[in-house]
Amino acid sequence: VTVTEPGPGPRVVVPFDATRPKTRLAPVLDTDERDAFARAMLRDVLAAVDTLDDATVDVVSTAPLDRDGGPGSDLAPRSAPESRATVTVDDRSLDAVVDDAIAETVGTGTAQGPLVVVMADLALVTPTALSRLLAPDADVVLAPGRGVGTNALVVRTPGFRTDFHGTSYLDHRRAARDVGTVEAVDSFRLATDVDEPADLVEAFVHGGPATTAWLTERFELAVADEEGRVTLVRQ
Amino acid sequence: VTVTEPGPGPRVVVPFDATRPKTRLAPVLDTDERDAFARAMLRDVLAAVDTLDDATVDVVSTAPLDRDGGPGSDLAPRSAPESRATVTVDDRSLDAVVDDAIAETVGTGTAQGPLVVVMADLALVTPTALSRLLAPDADVVLAPGRGVGTNALVVRTPGFRTDFHGTSYLDHRRAARDVGTVEAVDSFRLATDVDEPADLVEAFVHGGPATTAWLTERFELAVADEEGRVTLVRQ
Repeated sequence: VTVTEPGPGPRVVVPFDATRPKTRLAPVLDTDERDAFARAMLRDVLAAVDTLDDATVDVVSTAPLDRDGGPGSDLAPRSAPESRATVTVDDRSLDAVVDDAIAETVGTGTAQGPLVVVMADLALVTPTALSRLLAPDADVVLAPGRGVGTNALVVRTPGFRTDFHGTSYLDHRRAARDVGTVEAVDSFRLATDVDEPADLVEAFVHGGPATTAWLTERFELAVADEEGRVTLVRQ
Repeated sequence: VTVTEPGPGPRVVVPFDATRPKTRLAPVLDTDERDAFARAMLRDVLAAVDTLDDATVDVVSTAPLDRDGGPGSDLAPRSAPESRATVTVDDRSLDAVVDDAIAETVGTGTAQGPLVVVMADLALVTPTALSRLLAPDADVVLAPGRGVGTNALVVRTPGFRTDFHGTSYLDHRRAARDVGTVEAVDSFRLATDVDEPADLVEAFVHGGPATTAWLTERFELAVADEEGRVTLVRQ
């Protein structure tokens, strides 16, 4: 009998704030809408992550999620009955969650895949964008986000620690250089997290199927002014 | 004697508003600063464009530019004495300028390179990002910008016409499908045009050398609030 050892596929962690998600969208979405919209984006992120070969996928949520597999459940993408993600409830800080995942995943010395972190509000993420994130063979690969954030990263070295506050892209780049090699991925889809009302336009135009379905039921595109700026307006 | 015919290199057009550039930055930059900052971004764009093999580069400006080659001239990147760009003064609309360039470049039936349009405020553009723009072999390649704009494009078919107002990325994608094949390039660097005060953070962190030199003489990064949002503040 041949026993197949666990392959060197990536471990993907998707942190999710199930408690008070997307508070900065309060000017345009009420509390229930923010909850539902955050879950729609999570479903799109998981649908993209699920395409990665040999990946194990963990959603680390601040509160339990519904995963009955139906079309309205928190985790089921429209195109699949259920994500293969596991859900862990952990309400510690993002830094603590990710640093623990680094230690568990790349800190044991045995051959294993990298740790990948993908934020749950990357509504524009696609399998191709994730492939580009995983392509560089650097110790740390960063996907910069708007506003000097870090929207996704790949860690292949146990010495790296995270600090997601403020100018995290610059801080992570410095920290990565201290412990190994670092590369950045130039991706609009990975750079666009959906935090503020202005970001909803990007989600509407470029987002995954769950995100765009949710938005198109409520909003439509409008040209806002003479300069041609584009915004979303309620139907 | 062997006469080398003009190669099939791309013709790159960089439209530039030399008259009233970057008016939406008025909340943070005065008129003289907007003029100088727009020219710093233009120099970075030209430095990137100048790396393309066999390219001819035309700046189409609404007013004459200083091109004496010194470090303070409008066109000279810091790293080179002078851009090889030619400057044409043309104060018509962006659509008219680009449509004429399409007709001149890919409309004559002879073998020639594509027409490439790169906006002058793509302060984050790099040679690598431009190579990715030129890589797909589609009739039209689009680089979507924030807010459903079009920040760069490649045209290989004479049937395509532009419409840069409003939701131009969607409009250009539709128009391209009517006349041929279309692809989009997923690039944060190409998606980030510098139009509004919030965009200055991206230019400060990820911009080319002329842009970042200009900004770092006047601004510094600051974490704006408890949520960790990052902004620029005057020194």
